Amino acid sequence: MTPVSLARPRALEPGDRVAVLCVSGPVEPGALAAGLDALRFAGLDPVTYPSAHDPGTMRRYLAGDDAMRAGDLRSALTDPGIAGIMFARGGYGAQRTLEAMDWDGLAGIRPKVVAGYSDITAVLEAVAVRLGWASVFGPMVAIREGAAHYSFGSLLRTLMRPGQATVIQYPQAVAVVPGAARGVTTGGTLSLLVSSLGTGTSRPARDGIVLLEDVGEEDYRIDRMLTQLRRSGYLDGVAGIVAGTFTDCGPPEAIQDILTERLAPLGVPMIAGANVGHGGQVQAFPYGIAAEFDAGAATLRLLEPPLS
Amino acid sequence: MTPVSLARPRALEPGDRVAVLCVSGPVEPGALAAGLDALRFAGLDPVTYPSAHDPGTMRRYLAGDDAMRAGDLRSALTDPGIAGIMFARGGYGAQRTLEAMDWDGLAGIRPKVVAGYSDITAVLEAVAVRLGWASVFGPMVAIREGAAHYSFGSLLRTLMRPGQATVIQYPQAVAVVPGAARGVTTGGTLSLLVSSLGTGTSRPARDGIVLLEDVGEEDYRIDRMLTQLRRSGYLDGVAGIVAGTFTDCGPPEAIQDILTERLAPLGVPMIAGANVGHGGQVQAFPYGIAAEFDAGAATLRLLEPPLS
Repeated sequence: MTPVSLARPRALEPGDRVAVLCVSGPVEPGALAAGLDALRFAGLDPVTYPSAHDPGTMRRYLAGDDAMRAGDLRSALTDPGIAGIMFARGGYGAQRTLEAMDWDGLAGIRPKVVAGYSDITAVLEAVAVRLGWASVFGPMVAIREGAAHYSFGSLLRTLMRPGQATVIQYPQAVAVVPGAARGVTTGGTLSLLVSSLGTGTSRPARDGIVLLEDVGEEDYRIDRMLTQLRRSGYLDGVAGIVAGTFTDCGPPEAIQDILTERLAPLGVPMIAGANVGHGGQVQAFPYGIAAEFDAGAATLRLLEPPLS
Repeated sequence: MTPVSLARPRALEPGDRVAVLCVSGPVEPGALAAGLDALRFAGLDPVTYPSAHDPGTMRRYLAGDDAMRAGDLRSALTDPGIAGIMFARGGYGAQRTLEAMDWDGLAGIRPKVVAGYSDITAVLEAVAVRLGWASVFGPMVAIREGAAHYSFGSLLRTLMRPGQATVIQYPQAVAVVPGAARGVTTGGTLSLLVSSLGTGTSRPARDGIVLLEDVGEEDYRIDRMLTQLRRSGYLDGVAGIVAGTFTDCGPPEAIQDILTERLAPLGVPMIAGANVGHGGQVQAFPYGIAAEFDAGAATLRLLEPPLS
């Protein structure tokens, strides 16, 4: 069966207006300013929304209240003058935003860029389930880490020159289960995939090349979450597995051992240690794109550009 | 509608043989020995299973491998010479045990006591879903805390003199939403309820008086888990809410604020701060029993003894 991509947005071009908002935690203004400058340097015109300026009014870990965040997201999705949506930062709050979100009347609108990761995993799943859109799992706007240039560069290349971003190589990765498979890219941050299980915006990995990565989770929690993915049926029929970074989750060998023990028995091509996710030099991971995955070569070849 | 209890096991009597096993993490021998002595002091005859002696052979956080733990559980459930099952300790591993568990041929057997909490929440849900049994949310066998006498006493009174355990009062609790409701007791440790969402052994709280408690979870994680319970439909139609201890989850006022903000809008009677769960002097919470809950009086009155 030939995998079919979700609806792809058009690539971003210089001069495009890009919404910058928060569906999760409040962003530190200095880090946000640096990211906005990077977007402007790339020729984009970032437009900040109220949630990107809220200091945690309702609760220290939330940018604004649920209505503000959901309103910003809906507004950015529907505004024809906005070419793409990027998220100021992650943290926690996307689940609440999705609970408050009104999807009425959005089904027919033209796909636009949606890019983020970590807590935004829940949003990438939601726009795939509710709108049928492809998106991009990649860095947030607020720049806080040393390797931001690499990661941001990978994201902007994907968003602005998608024709040059169809072959993704993971030189640091190891093949856990060799072999090749075709499927549609999916998944994201493990704890967020798990936090949407049982809800209307979870998107099971069937026929997919699934990304799994995380940050700051203890070994037994990684084990528990992988076990829940197995038990819930999320992984039924998965075509391939890309295990990315597991940063601050304890010794990498221990985590790889758990990943292997829980996932290799599924018998599909799998790599571990790919530079996608939280961590230093990470690559953007297009979501919802038909791809051919070669675990032995640690290569993900998209069958078409991730944006049109 | 009159709530109907799940199938109740008979009360334990002096001389009864009680299986002691692990479906989760390995138990420290000294703590286990103290608990076994307490059971013997109450007149019971504890029988330890292999998983109660495994030091973490497969993985430091697991007692034995999945086959050993699931085999011990099945063996204890089916052995007619075993009157009840108590768990040596919690930790993590119940989800894996349930994944490995073979329930074939168990549907018709006579109910027996199943008692535990924390990670065992998943087992209480599973025996309710698969076998239709009531059980008891209460302390583990391995004694590690100072207030164990109180907690263990509450458990043993429930198991051995259930006729005297039908009125449960929560003197430290506050009424978040006053009012009274009837329902069947359910729920348990929040993170474990969430870890079973989407699986075949989750038991939604519809028509239930739901217990929620936890240990060692950050505020935003409590928020995320409550939000997932809401979004997944787990809380649809819930009749009442007993929020127990949230130990080592940050300032109690902050947690109560989150509990109130996420749960009070459901509009059902609710208390917070009940002494059930992790923490010091905690009471056993019969699971699957028809009850009348009065939030204003902070009282849970079982409509029949929790064991027959």
